[in-house]
Amino acid sequence: MAKDFITKEENYSQWYNDLVLKADLAENSAVRGCMIIKPYGYAIWEKVQAALDKMFKETGHYNMYFPIFIPKSFFSKEASHVEGFAKECAVVTHYRLKNDPNGKGVVVDEDSKLDEELIIRPTSETIIWDAYRNWIKSYRDLPILANQWANVVRWEMRTRLFLRTTEFLWQEGHTAHATEAEALEEAEKMLNVYADFAENFMAMPVTKGTKSPNERFAGAIETYCIEALMQDGKALQAGTSHFLGQNFAKAFDVKYLTKENKLEYVWATSWGVSTRLMGALVMTHSDNNGLVLPPKLAPIQVAIVPIFKTPEQLAIIKEKIMPVKKELEAKGISVKFDERDTVTPGWKFSEYEFKGVPVRLAIGQRDIENNTIEVARRDTLEKSTYQFTDIVSKIEHLLEHIQENLYQKAKTFTADNTFYANTWDEFKNIIENKGGFVFAHWDGTPETEQKIKDETKATIRCIPLNNTLENGKCIYSGKPSTQKVIFAKAY
Amino acid sequence: MAKDFITKEENYSQWYNDLVLKADLAENSAVRGCMIIKPYGYAIWEKVQAALDKMFKETGHYNMYFPIFIPKSFFSKEASHVEGFAKECAVVTHYRLKNDPNGKGVVVDEDSKLDEELIIRPTSETIIWDAYRNWIKSYRDLPILANQWANVVRWEMRTRLFLRTTEFLWQEGHTAHATEAEALEEAEKMLNVYADFAENFMAMPVTKGTKSPNERFAGAIETYCIEALMQDGKALQAGTSHFLGQNFAKAFDVKYLTKENKLEYVWATSWGVSTRLMGALVMTHSDNNGLVLPPKLAPIQVAIVPIFKTPEQLAIIKEKIMPVKKELEAKGISVKFDERDTVTPGWKFSEYEFKGVPVRLAIGQRDIENNTIEVARRDTLEKSTYQFTDIVSKIEHLLEHIQENLYQKAKTFTADNTFYANTWDEFKNIIENKGGFVFAHWDGTPETEQKIKDETKATIRCIPLNNTLENGKCIYSGKPSTQKVIFAKAY
Repeated sequence: MAKDFITKEENYSQWYNDLVLKADLAENSAVRGCMIIKPYGYAIWEKVQAALDKMFKETGHYNMYFPIFIPKSFFSKEASHVEGFAKECAVVTHYRLKNDPNGKGVVVDEDSKLDEELIIRPTSETIIWDAYRNWIKSYRDLPILANQWANVVRWEMRTRLFLRTTEFLWQEGHTAHATEAEALEEAEKMLNVYADFAENFMAMPVTKGTKSPNERFAGAIETYCIEALMQDGKALQAGTSHFLGQNFAKAFDVKYLTKENKLEYVWATSWGVSTRLMGALVMTHSDNNGLVLPPKLAPIQVAIVPIFKTPEQLAIIKEKIMPVKKELEAKGISVKFDERDTVTPGWKFSEYEFKGVPVRLAIGQRDIENNTIEVARRDTLEKSTYQFTDIVSKIEHLLEHIQENLYQKAKTFTADNTFYANTWDEFKNIIENKGGFVFAHWDGTPETEQKIKDETKATIRCIPLNNTLENGKCIYSGKPSTQKVIFAKAY
Repeated sequence: MAKDFITKEENYSQWYNDLVLKADLAENSAVRGCMIIKPYGYAIWEKVQAALDKMFKETGHYNMYFPIFIPKSFFSKEASHVEGFAKECAVVTHYRLKNDPNGKGVVVDEDSKLDEELIIRPTSETIIWDAYRNWIKSYRDLPILANQWANVVRWEMRTRLFLRTTEFLWQEGHTAHATEAEALEEAEKMLNVYADFAENFMAMPVTKGTKSPNERFAGAIETYCIEALMQDGKALQAGTSHFLGQNFAKAFDVKYLTKENKLEYVWATSWGVSTRLMGALVMTHSDNNGLVLPPKLAPIQVAIVPIFKTPEQLAIIKEKIMPVKKELEAKGISVKFDERDTVTPGWKFSEYEFKGVPVRLAIGQRDIENNTIEVARRDTLEKSTYQFTDIVSKIEHLLEHIQENLYQKAKTFTADNTFYANTWDEFKNIIENKGGFVFAHWDGTPETEQKIKDETKATIRCIPLNNTLENGKCIYSGKPSTQKVIFAKAY
C-alpha cells in the first residue's frame, strides 16, 4: 500500500487513474474499454446500489429485468434515439463458433448469421416500450413505475475507469403515466432522489437543472440533471432524469383507454445513474494520501489496529476492544479488527489511510493502562487520544461528523469555484485559468452553445431549476438573454 | 386473475408455462429465447439473491464484476471448455450502425468490423483466469474467494421461461487456491451452501452428488450438483459446483510462489446457480389453483383483505388491524393491506391464492364483534377462524409451519417417487411409466450412459455423495458395478 503515486496538483488525471488502480477499485480488462470492478470497488458499488434501491422502493418503484439484446429494427423507430446511439453500438451478428476446417482454430460459423442483427442495449427504452404496448390497455394499468439494474454497452473511443467505459453498470427507471403532469412530476421526483443520494450519501453537493437541447438525451423532451464540481474544476454529470413526452409511446404505438373511454398515447420518463458515480465519489473527496470515503458508503467504516508484541498483549487488547467491535456492529457500523502479525501497525495505518477508511483506532499496552484509545480521522488526518468511556457513541458521532464535514468541505469548494462572467473575455479567462462553474448569459440557441464549446471546450452543464430570471446579453453573441446558465468544462 | 388455466394432470408443460405467464412472473420478449422478468417474478428473484449473497459472504466470499465480453482467442485456450460452449455463443463482430446510403434505414457499418470477435460470456472462467494471472503472484495472494452476479448468454435452440433461456441471470463464484485439498473443500462447501439454500429457503429437497463424465462442466475435473425432483417426475439440476483442478491455471499460465519459494499452478473452483431456480421453485410447490410460494421467498407473506361496505366500517377495521400489520412488519414480515374498493373481496382472495401468498387474512364487521379473524393458508387451502388475541405470534408461527410443511410435502413426494431398478426391463418400465429418481447399477462408462439415454431419454443425474458401495451388475451392460447411481429424465 504505497504512497508513491503522483499528486493531484502534478497531474490530476493520472492521480485519479493511479488511485483507482492502487486502491484496488478497478482495472482495465483484456477487452478494450471494459473495466474489471475489483472486490473493494464493488463493495462500494453495493452500498451505492443498496441505498438507491431503498430510495426507489420508498418512492413506489419496483424492479424488473429486460433482455440485453435489442433487435436492430427497434432502434430505428424513434428517430432522434437511433441518431444518438447508432454510432456506438456493439452488434451481434452470429450465434455460433466452429473449428476452422483449415485448422486455424476457432472461427465464427458463417452459417449462424442472424436474420436481424441484435444490438447490445446502450439503454432500454425501445425494447421496454415495445413490451409496454402489451402491458398497458387502460388507465387501470397505469402508472408503471419500474426500474432495472443492468449492464449496458456504449462503444466509447476514449475510456477512463468508471468515468467512461464501454460496458458499465447502471440502473434505468422506465415509467409510464396517464398524464403529462404526472410524468413531469415523476421526472422531477427522481431528480430529487438522485440529488438527495448525492448529497446525503456521497457527501457531494450537486446543482439541479435542465439540459440545453444540445446536451439532451436522444429521444427526450426535457432532460433534468444533477451536476457536481470535481477538484480540478471540471463538472461531472452525476445523474439524469428524462421527460420523454409521448415520443416512445408514439414510436411503439402504446395507447391506453382513458376513464372517458378515449384512446390516448401514454406519457413516459426514464432516469439513470451508473458506475460513473464511483468516479465522482473518488474525485470529490480523495487527496494525495489516497482515497477518502464518506462513512455512509465506506465498506469498512472503522478499522481497529492492536499494537502488541506478544500473544498475551494481544489477548488483553482483544478482551478490551472486542465488545466495542460488537456494539458498533450492532449499530450497523462495519468494523475490521486487524490482528495480522505479518505486517507492522504502521503499514496497516498507511493501508487504511490509502483505502479511505473513515476512522482508524489504535490500541496498545499504554492505552489499556490509561483507559484510552487512539482515534485517527481520515478526512482531516487528525489523531487524538480518546478516553475509552462511552467510546461506542463517540465513534458513532464521529462518523456522522465526518460525513457532514466532507459534505461541507465539498460545498465550500463548489462555492469557491463558482464564478459569474459578464463579458466574453472574462468568461474565457475564467474557463481557461480557473475552471469551475461559470454563470453567464446565453442567447438560448444551440449555435451559440456550439461556438462557445468550439472556442473554449466549455459546455452548458445546466440551466438551474428555479433560476433567477433577469434581462441581460449573451456573453458570446450579445443577443438578449433572460437568465444566466452554468458553463463548465466537463467529464 | 383467472383460474381458467389447464391442470397439471392434463398437460404439465403447458400448466407451467401458463402459470408463469398468468402469475406475472415472466414473459417472452421480442428477442428469440430471451425472457422479460416481470416485477412480481423479479421480487422473488431479489429474495433469492439476498439470501444467497448473505450465505456467500458468511462463508468468506466477496463480489466483483468482470466484462460481459470475452475475446474469441481466450475461449480456445482450454480445449474442452471451447468444445462445450462454442456452439451456443452470441458473437459481436461490429461496433457501429449507420444510415444506409441507399435509404434502407439503419444498417451495420462494415467499417466498424472488429479485428477479433467478442463472445458474450456464457460463463466467465476464461476472462477471469486471464486476470488472475496478474492478481496472483505468491501464496499470500491466495485464496481468492470471489463471486459475481451477472447476465450470461447461451444460444439455446429450445427455450422455456426460467428453465432454459438464451440470456439468464446467475451468480458465478470463481475461487483460486494454493492446494488441491483446499479447492476440493471449497467446491464441496459451496455445494452445501446451495443445498442449504434449496432446502431451507426454497423448501425443495435436493440430492447432492457428482456428475458422470458425460454431464460434467466443460473444463472441470469434477462437477458436484444438487438435483431436485419436479412434480412430473422429471429431475432438475438446481446448482453446480466445479472442481477445476489446474486446468484454467495451465491454460492461462497462473502460477504462484509457494512458501518454499517454488512456482506452482493455482487450483480452481467455480460454482453457480441461476434464474432456473425460479422454474424449480414454481414447479416444486404450485398446484392447479396457481402459484404456491414458501414464506421465506414470498414477496408478500401476508395479505390482509378487509370486508366492508362503508368507509366507517373500513375505518373500524383499520383501527383494529393496522397495529397488527405494523407489528408483523417490525418482525421483518412483508404485509399487504388491500383496501381497494374497485374489486370484490372474493376477487382479491383468488388473486392472492393465484399469486401464492402464503397467508391471507380477512376481517369484517362480525370479526370485530367476536374479536376474531379469518386465516387462510395457501399450502393446504384451509381456512380457520382465529381468536384475535396474540395474532401476531400466531401468524409468525403459521408462516414457519407453512415453510416446514411445504418442505415435508416435497420430501415425501421425492421419497415416493424414488425407485430401485434391478433389471433393464424394470428400469425401462419405471422410466417410461412412473418417472422419478431411479437408482440402478451402472458400469461406469460414458458409452453405456449414452446408450441408456438414447433408448430411454434418462440420464445419470448424479452419483450421490456418501453413496453405499455394493457389488452388482450394470442394468444395461451386465458388467460389474460398485454402486447404484441415480437416473432420471431431466429438465
